[in-house]
Amino acid sequence: VMALRARVLYDFTSENTGEISVKENEIVTVYSEKDIEGWLEGTNSRGERGLFPASYVEVLKNNDKSTAHNNNSTAVDAYQGSRYANIPPGGFEPFTTFSAPPPPSHQHHQQPSYPVSQGSDDDWDDDWDDNSTVADEPGVVSGGFHDYEGNGPSTYRVSTTSMSRGGNAQQAKSSATVSRNLNRFSTFVKSGGEAFVLGEASGFVKDGDKICVVMGQHGPEWQENPYPFSCTIDDPTKQTKFKGMKSYISYKLSPTHTQSPVNRRYKHFDWLYARLVEKFPVISVPHIPEKQATGRFEEDFISKRRKGLVWWMNHMTSHPVLARCDVFQHFLTCSSTDEKAWKQGKRKAEKDEMVGANFFLTISTPVAPLDLQEVESKTDGFKAFTKKMDDSVIQVNATLNEFARKQITGFKKEYQKVGQSFKYLSQAFELDQQTFSVGLNQAIGFTGEAYEAIGDYFVEQPKQDVDPVLDLLALYQGHLANYPDIIHVQKGALTKVKDSQKHVEEGKMERQQADGINERCNIISFATLAEIQHFHQIRVRDFKAQMQHYLQQQISFFQKVTGKLEEALRKYDNA
Amino acid sequence: VMALRARVLYDFTSENTGEISVKENEIVTVYSEKDIEGWLEGTNSRGERGLFPASYVEVLKNNDKSTAHNNNSTAVDAYQGSRYANIPPGGFEPFTTFSAPPPPSHQHHQQPSYPVSQGSDDDWDDDWDDNSTVADEPGVVSGGFHDYEGNGPSTYRVSTTSMSRGGNAQQAKSSATVSRNLNRFSTFVKSGGEAFVLGEASGFVKDGDKICVVMGQHGPEWQENPYPFSCTIDDPTKQTKFKGMKSYISYKLSPTHTQSPVNRRYKHFDWLYARLVEKFPVISVPHIPEKQATGRFEEDFISKRRKGLVWWMNHMTSHPVLARCDVFQHFLTCSSTDEKAWKQGKRKAEKDEMVGANFFLTISTPVAPLDLQEVESKTDGFKAFTKKMDDSVIQVNATLNEFARKQITGFKKEYQKVGQSFKYLSQAFELDQQTFSVGLNQAIGFTGEAYEAIGDYFVEQPKQDVDPVLDLLALYQGHLANYPDIIHVQKGALTKVKDSQKHVEEGKMERQQADGINERCNIISFATLAEIQHFHQIRVRDFKAQMQHYLQQQISFFQKVTGKLEEALRKYDNA
Repeated sequence: VMALRARVLYDFTSENTGEISVKENEIVTVYSEKDIEGWLEGTNSRGERGLFPASYVEVLKNNDKSTAHNNNSTAVDAYQGSRYANIPPGGFEPFTTFSAPPPPSHQHHQQPSYPVSQGSDDDWDDDWDDNSTVADEPGVVSGGFHDYEGNGPSTYRVSTTSMSRGGNAQQAKSSATVSRNLNRFSTFVKSGGEAFVLGEASGFVKDGDKICVVMGQHGPEWQENPYPFSCTIDDPTKQTKFKGMKSYISYKLSPTHTQSPVNRRYKHFDWLYARLVEKFPVISVPHIPEKQATGRFEEDFISKRRKGLVWWMNHMTSHPVLARCDVFQHFLTCSSTDEKAWKQGKRKAEKDEMVGANFFLTISTPVAPLDLQEVESKTDGFKAFTKKMDDSVIQVNATLNEFARKQITGFKKEYQKVGQSFKYLSQAFELDQQTFSVGLNQAIGFTGEAYEAIGDYFVEQPKQDVDPVLDLLALYQGHLANYPDIIHVQKGALTKVKDSQKHVEEGKMERQQADGINERCNIISFATLAEIQHFHQIRVRDFKAQMQHYLQQQISFFQKVTGKLEEALRKYDNA
Repeated sequence: VMALRARVLYDFTSENTGEISVKENEIVTVYSEKDIEGWLEGTNSRGERGLFPASYVEVLKNNDKSTAHNNNSTAVDAYQGSRYANIPPGGFEPFTTFSAPPPPSHQHHQQPSYPVSQGSDDDWDDDWDDNSTVADEPGVVSGGFHDYEGNGPSTYRVSTTSMSRGGNAQQAKSSATVSRNLNRFSTFVKSGGEAFVLGEASGFVKDGDKICVVMGQHGPEWQENPYPFSCTIDDPTKQTKFKGMKSYISYKLSPTHTQSPVNRRYKHFDWLYARLVEKFPVISVPHIPEKQATGRFEEDFISKRRKGLVWWMNHMTSHPVLARCDVFQHFLTCSSTDEKAWKQGKRKAEKDEMVGANFFLTISTPVAPLDLQEVESKTDGFKAFTKKMDDSVIQVNATLNEFARKQITGFKKEYQKVGQSFKYLSQAFELDQQTFSVGLNQAIGFTGEAYEAIGDYFVEQPKQDVDPVLDLLALYQGHLANYPDIIHVQKGALTKVKDSQKHVEEGKMERQQADGINERCNIISFATLAEIQHFHQIRVRDFKAQMQHYLQQQISFFQKVTGKLEEALRKYDNA
């Protein structure tokens, strides 16, 4: 293979083994035009050989001297595809993967690639589930029931807030006087956080779009939704179209703030999710239940998905910002039969300008600015919190999965064996049919049946207690996977403030400009802390409720067992 | 090895593969004078090669022509030794091993040889436990706790009613006109049953020795003890003598019918047991707890042995015949400090003439004789019953052992793992110390501790419920191992009746003699059916009580678990 030459478009600083640093306008040698998951291999002008992002260079063909700002769009597209293909499935690897695409050898968590909902009207009628490439990935095909053999839940799709934000970064003006973070893979850049901090975001904020952060008892909080509502999800129904050629499941959504239930399909949730992730840089959008290739029409799967959607809906309606946003309201309120109105709202959402960087424009904060040092400390504390919570959620998840599995297999077996041996004993005793023996024979036989029944109780129980906890844990694993990016945006903003202060001291920047950066960082900080506070509140609410539910169910279970044994004991009264 | 010649002393009919039949006065070839567990290998006059009982032949040395009736006492001694060494330990192989010593390959249940208590005054002060050859047998050395890894209980020594009865068989007169069962290994012969049926037993029966069988609601029964009593066994105390050189455990026995508790050691129980087995041919003497070589002074072992002795005592005092017999009363009432009185009673018991064949002389029956066909049918039914009960007892025993083991290991582990993961989760949550979070953190922490405690409950539980059932099963396995011999005596007597009737028809026997056989068989039948009835009565009583106890304990356990969970649940009330 003949070596090719490429011009470096942006500075890239290597952060991991195998990567090399390259400088803007440097000419490097590459070994293939074809990128490996967004990376090219080459040698820089200092003779170092290694990987750098494909989108940071422009391959020169026939001494092509095209401008440095003309992106190698193929490489970018390929990379973006690879982002979705390489998101860690459960848990996360905080603070290591978001600043640059890690080389393939680092990606020990593989997740199948999901097609991204681009929201084109043309493919609206495709059943995305059917067309999913997931079908060929055995790891994703799971029964409707919790997979007690596995260790991690794969109930929710895991994504990051960086989804679809490539466009915002490209809007950033190269004329900014403050040094730009040249790592285009940074969430800070992609989320629009950097552009906003640098004062590059602009848009018209309508009054209705205003999002308020207020000072609560525990610090910044999202202003409560003055019109709280909830929404049930019921009646999953199999629908067909094209004379039965296509089938899908439709769910009935009944929001409490309208009198009209609407029918929605999984693909509508999926589309909405993509819009929300695109729009809100520092809000943890709850993940929707994962796609599933097979068994989509099996009762267990439908019931599991409905439960997942209910959890998701609960977190959506609980969130003061998400609950009120236009696209969600469109989703909740637009008549399922009015095709035209739906498409209108859909197009509007897809053309929403107040996404990414511009989202921050919509935030109103209290007048008194935050102490940024305190913000940093709180953010660091939250980072440690999420890491430890994630570890323990993984452990609880694994333990409860195993606990459920043991109850369904081993515990059941032991109680049934005890039951069978008592029954066998009663059969032996039945060979003596003297009147004084008959009562005992029957009582022992009944005891045997009671133990067999208890074995069955153990099989049925995890559905009542373990499963809801696992659902909760899966939802929170989704949130925990979101936070590294959110924290990264916050950290990026704080760094910009520090940099600008230094620049002012060095006379390289006017104080006014630095003040602007500081003010905008303050807005991001209010939003981040409000989001963290919201997380803690729903966490305490949810875990309290679920632990109570779990214990109540366990208590009911043991009472049921006790009741069965008492029933058996009474049989001996007249024996 | 040079072949030897031997003269056959008694007819022997082969009953198993590997055995050959030999006829009285036949000359056979033997390959070694040394018997293998009571058997010799040789070739008979028809050229068949195989095994026959060593005691049935007389090896001819130097053309020795000694009379056929001079037993080869060495071989008999060797065989009798081997009987004790080859008793199946738990369960039994009914109706296969009692008519002749089976060849070694049939003996898959091996039990170590216990020295038989011959009751000599000289060795009375030896600590039998210490001197037991059991010490070298790994199978018998067990911890004080139930061996949940094993399948069968080895709690009780298993023996048979044939113990020490060789002597009685030898008393049988060779001048009997009815054909004798020439198989000297037959329990029927050894128990004295045959001698009694043939009218060869004689002795003076005092009024106080009379044992009455009466007709009850369900058929023949032992007359109830008019002075019922019970006896507690408490305060196992370590005693030393010879300036601490010898140690033993002394138990305090408190019979309710006397005002004086007595102290007895295991060896006293052991001696008593041997006397009872010798005396009563068709009574199932409860087995005493097995000997144990190591750990004799460990608390668990002492507690287990005491429990075993309590069960044994309960069955002794419940039995209308055993409870009242002299040797047992001597054991219960003789002052522990009056050495002289003890030895007097001991010698008297050992010289008791009313044992074996003579025991039957002491039995008084109702006037109306039994229908012997009905007796046979009832005996066959009981044989089937004991077989099936033994099978199911083995199964219940194995299942409950495994159930206990699982609770102590697996169940405990699962609950503790759940507890630990909840504790880990609460530790993660403690990183957030906001006031609204603290209550939840503590509640989850407490929940973790509750699950760990439940794990411990599972460990403690089998002692409360499974162990007593296992004790019961072990005691009954002892009884079930006794019944084949008892049934065999009954069957032997019935066969003699049939034979005698045939002889009368053939003119070979006088009707008067046949009537005598019939009458004596009637006595054995009354005794056997009374014993069977007694077994059913205590069985129903014991299994009812133990099943109730087991269920009550299981209910308490699940209530305790429920209580702990309710305690945990309450912690969330103010969380």
